[in-house]
Parts: sequence; structure tokens; C-alpha cells
Amino acid sequence: MPEESLRHMSPEECFVLLGREPLGRVSVSIGALPAILPVNYTLFDGAIVLRTAPGTKLSAALMGNVVGFEIDGTNTDHTAGWSVVVVGHAREIHDDTTLERVRDLPRESWAPDHRGHFVQISIEHISGRAFGPFPGLGSTP
Amino acid sequence: MPEESLRHMSPEECFVLLGREPLGRVSVSIGALPAILPVNYTLFDGAIVLRTAPGTKLSAALMGNVVGFEIDGTNTDHTAGWSVVVVGHAREIHDDTTLERVRDLPRESWAPDHRGHFVQISIEHISGRAFGPFPGLGSTP
Repeated sequence: MPEESLRHMSPEECFVLLGREPLGRVSVSIGALPAILPVNYTLFDGAIVLRTAPGTKLSAALMGNVVGFEIDGTNTDHTAGWSVVVVGHAREIHDDTTLERVRDLPRESWAPDHRGHFVQISIEHISGRAFGPFPGLGSTP
Repeated sequence: MPEESLRHMSPEECFVLLGREPLGRVSVSIGALPAILPVNYTLFDGAIVLRTAPGTKLSAALMGNVVGFEIDGTNTDHTAGWSVVVVGHAREIHDDTTLERVRDLPRESWAPDHRGHFVQISIEHISGRAFGPFPGLGSTP
């Protein structure tokens, strides 16, 4: 595959993809070691919102830190794919108005504790790239 | 979903999944910021092997560092899923015998430069977890 087939996506394309995927991955340090953990998330008021179970290593690793966040997709035979990478600060959502609005967001399969914290990751840097025949933003790759 | 439905997988299950997936994600620091990048990989002699294009940020971030590596999968409606997380040192493969054997490994869609470095990530820590009705190791979730 020629190198020029790996192209950068626009921020608008990245946000469309962020808005339609249910599953992402956060990159945090746990015990000074790098870790990547899958999380369900939703895009809410221009930020990534996810729920973590209280007292978990993930919860502790997220709070107040700069974290990486990623989504990706490929077609069935892996000849086309895309990824979006976000960097931003993670903080717990405390204000009642926002909490009221995010409580009804889709459930968190990867952190099934219903008493979970709601965590917001601000989108301070976003980039995306794609290779192969792009499957289009209207359909799931 | 009750919390007990999130279960830990055995190392053997983790290795089976590592052996069948084509796409993983590495967690590295780039410019002191966390980044997660998708990579094609293969399991070779008990280590993760991937190809990176020379001169890239990914290549520089990997070499000699402790990195995180992750694979995951879900069923179509995201009611079941699994993930495997690895931590290990990344180093470039230099010895000719190993290079000869890994050159024929599946091509690296995410780093299409054919002159790429081959990088090995040793598997120093491996863990996996799954939730929902487990789709079984014999089929793709």
C-alpha cells in the first residue's frame, strides 16, 4: 500500500466519528506503568463522558490527569481503517445540573457499577487518520 | 448488569486472543503526552511483533521504552466484550535470523512503509477481562 493512502482526517470528521462510536480506550498510568483500558463513552457538550466504578485503579488514574483517548474501526478484511486520538484532562463531574443530564446516558458495560463516577475528558487535542478506501462517515466500517 | 459478570480471563485465554487478532493498540508518550495508536501485529516466539515506519514519532516513542498494548472485541450490540492488556519493553529487532523470519509476516496496514523497523514488545505482564455472555474463543465476537 503506498504511503500516501494514509491520510489525515479533519477535526469535523473526527467529531462525527466520536459521536457515533460507543466504545473507546483510555490511556493512563497505573503504578507507573502504561495501561490502555476499553470504556464505553458518549460525546456530551463537546467532551467525552464516561462512567467509572468508584475505588478502581482506572478511576484513580483518570482523575485530574492528562489522558489519551482513542477510537478506531476497520472494514472486515482490514484493508481500510481509521482512528481518532484525543488528549485532554480528565475530571470528575460534580455539578448537579450536568449530572442530571448525563445520568441517562447509555450504560457503561465495561464498568457496570451503577454508583459510578461520571468523568469528563476535555478534548484539547484531536487528530485522526485513515487508510484504504474510506468507508464513509454514514456507515459503520 | 451485575458486577460479577465482569470476569478475569486466564493467561492462556489471553494468548489465544492475542494469537488471532490482527489489530492492537500501543500506548506511548509523545512529547510528554499520552498517545494511543492502532497497529497491526503478530504474535511471534511469545512476543508481539509489529512494523513501524522509520523516523516516525511512533517509532521513536517505542524504542527501549515500557509500553502498553491492548486488543479488544465486542459483539454487535455491545452486550458482550473482552479486552487483553499487555505491558512490556519495546525494542527493535536487529538480529538477521529473526528478521528473516518476521519479514514475511502480514503487512502493516497502519505503517505502510515497507522499509519499516521491526519492533518486538516482550510480554512481561498480561491480563484480560470479559463481560456478558462470552462469545467463545473459537469465533470472532
